[in-house]
Amino acid sequence: MANLRVDRDRLWATLMDMARIGATAKGGSCRLALTDDDKAARDLFVRWCGEAGCRIAVDDLGNVFATRAGRNASLPPIATGSHLDTQPHGGKFDGVYGVLAGLEVVRTLNDHDVSTERPIEVVVWTNEEGVRFAPGVMGSGVFAGTIDRDHALSQRDARGCSVGAELARIGYAGPEACGARTFGAFLEAHIEQGPILEMSGHPIGIVTGAQGLAWYDVCVVGEDAHAGTTPMTARRDALSAAAEMTVALEELAHAHAPHAVATVGGLEVSPNSRNTIPGHVRLAVDVRHPDATVLGALGEAFERRCAEIAGRKRLAVNVERVEYVPPVAFDADCVDTVRGAARRLEHGYQDIMSGAGHDACQLARRVPTGMIFVPCAGGLSHNEAESAQPQDLAAGCDVLLHAIVERARGQHR
Amino acid sequence: MANLRVDRDRLWATLMDMARIGATAKGGSCRLALTDDDKAARDLFVRWCGEAGCRIAVDDLGNVFATRAGRNASLPPIATGSHLDTQPHGGKFDGVYGVLAGLEVVRTLNDHDVSTERPIEVVVWTNEEGVRFAPGVMGSGVFAGTIDRDHALSQRDARGCSVGAELARIGYAGPEACGARTFGAFLEAHIEQGPILEMSGHPIGIVTGAQGLAWYDVCVVGEDAHAGTTPMTARRDALSAAAEMTVALEELAHAHAPHAVATVGGLEVSPNSRNTIPGHVRLAVDVRHPDATVLGALGEAFERRCAEIAGRKRLAVNVERVEYVPPVAFDADCVDTVRGAARRLEHGYQDIMSGAGHDACQLARRVPTGMIFVPCAGGLSHNEAESAQPQDLAAGCDVLLHAIVERARGQHR
Repeated sequence: MANLRVDRDRLWATLMDMARIGATAKGGSCRLALTDDDKAARDLFVRWCGEAGCRIAVDDLGNVFATRAGRNASLPPIATGSHLDTQPHGGKFDGVYGVLAGLEVVRTLNDHDVSTERPIEVVVWTNEEGVRFAPGVMGSGVFAGTIDRDHALSQRDARGCSVGAELARIGYAGPEACGARTFGAFLEAHIEQGPILEMSGHPIGIVTGAQGLAWYDVCVVGEDAHAGTTPMTARRDALSAAAEMTVALEELAHAHAPHAVATVGGLEVSPNSRNTIPGHVRLAVDVRHPDATVLGALGEAFERRCAEIAGRKRLAVNVERVEYVPPVAFDADCVDTVRGAARRLEHGYQDIMSGAGHDACQLARRVPTGMIFVPCAGGLSHNEAESAQPQDLAAGCDVLLHAIVERARGQHR
Repeated sequence: MANLRVDRDRLWATLMDMARIGATAKGGSCRLALTDDDKAARDLFVRWCGEAGCRIAVDDLGNVFATRAGRNASLPPIATGSHLDTQPHGGKFDGVYGVLAGLEVVRTLNDHDVSTERPIEVVVWTNEEGVRFAPGVMGSGVFAGTIDRDHALSQRDARGCSVGAELARIGYAGPEACGARTFGAFLEAHIEQGPILEMSGHPIGIVTGAQGLAWYDVCVVGEDAHAGTTPMTARRDALSAAAEMTVALEELAHAHAPHAVATVGGLEVSPNSRNTIPGHVRLAVDVRHPDATVLGALGEAFERRCAEIAGRKRLAVNVERVEYVPPVAFDADCVDTVRGAARRLEHGYQDIMSGAGHDACQLARRVPTGMIFVPCAGGLSHNEAESAQPQDLAAGCDVLLHAIVERARGQHR
């Protein structure tokens, strides 16, 4: 068993085959959830899994479960997977890698005539990206109980098509109630979508959990005035205050290094005219930290700094938290299983927190969950230029294989 | 002569009558240059001046000259005036006050049977605001030789109508070559459009000159990246750098108090998405100072600060000066004349620099020029809520009257 390895070239070829569905001119993929291209990707996956001897089930959220039977059908399976939908200018790997790594695990077990005590399931979760239908992580969220099923099915895209109607249209409105089944564990492989592994040179990230996230809308109100005739001391310049708030936010993140990240991603100025002192500015702020207590303290400190800056500059400010996702700690046993597999395979590895949300972060609320990250070039993702190395993808898939075999108690037949 | 005073109520009523042309729902005026409303305003002015015994001339830029004869027709006249065109959401006073204060001076001289050695001319300059046709200060700029006549006449509005065609359409394409006449002096009364006089409680500002202006476009280029997965130390955040540049600009202005003003009026973020670190930011910067040397040094210091910030944050920055208007110093004799009139009339006054551009700033390049400012509420202008007090408007008009009488050598008949 220790010598078991996935087929690097087959994994790569499978990824490239899938990437042809919705391929973009710049080398990426565009497969928005529940479109014809999403259906084609699902159909291809189902065909491949059937050829690998798996039984297919689909639930009423369109989540697809491909089961490789175990020796004991009464035990909850070990599940793996991710999503096949992409961003509009998406890459070939985000999500897709997690699904096809699961398929490659099944194929490898078949090749080497390995049976497992527990069944193994490869899952395609519906609408992880949340681009066409909000919210994202929809299929895994309903499965984990964090998103209401009827709410999810009634969500509509910009043209007014609902999730439920589109599932039926593409033939993936399954008979099974979403969340009816359960797993012994869920393990997801994914590209990092950040630069940490590439910078450290480690092909494997042992994901210990996911950062919590808090989004703030900051509204600064001063007074429009003539840029030429208003002395500096008489100004109530909303943009000058917003600039100080942006600098303060960055200082707070650095003061909570290395885990805190904080970003002003959006900024809108009114009237946005060169020779008028801006009276209104809105900031869209994103703050993340793996510890809920620190995350809360960061937000409170930022609010205090905003109030101090606005008070000193005679402006009004309103800071509103508009979104909050608590941190997720993955199951210690699952994390240990992944770390042990990486060690035994002698791949360079390091612990890492996920900065982004994933289907696994939803699953972690219901079943023991772990994740494996592999590097992507420049940390780039949600971009047609998203890129990963075949050997890194194979290394991550080997770790997934060995973690699954351990959890499912595999043995040669 | 020392007891001569304008008619406060007549001046106010004349301003209110003019404001009915293009009146807006919120109490302002909208008379874009060379529209039917601009024609109606010009026609009303011409009628009033005719009733006051003036001779009317119009040049080929549509500038209108209403001449009250002097005892010696061979001497260049003392001219006053401003503009009747407004911003889209303009007020009742910006420009209009300067034109109608000139008319009130003529009416007052008529009432008291005062003759002057030199003729007196009240001028309406075409398209000061530059809203419908760029550039602004068009009529006075061509008159002063800073704007090319043919270039001005060929400028087109958003619908493709040219200045020349619109002048002909409204009947104000006059036979006289713009700039053919000259003046002994030009004196313009105007609302301050800033808060300085209101804060000091002085009804009269003795305008000694106009600030120079430099506009900069600053382009900061970093790299778009995921706000959740990119550590603080790995970021190339263009908005965070732009915020530091904004703070640095404000510090530079304060370091050159009280005369420097500097503003980031416009800021555009790309991709402007909350959970993406912004890779591109453009800043629209306005810097003003009455001393050309200091203005240049401020711009250079700002460029150095931008380069330092960008270098430290591993970003590219480009700072380009896209507009430069040198400072204007008004004629010392004209300034003294205005100051002496304010002192003799026992009005509170102070020296002041103009922060905005005016027709007088153009005229100053050709003829001895001065300006008189009166307060406006809250320093507000280019706004339908623009407001000024009848007694302040009358005080400014009295100063204009006495300055003109002195320069034109008035005496009772």
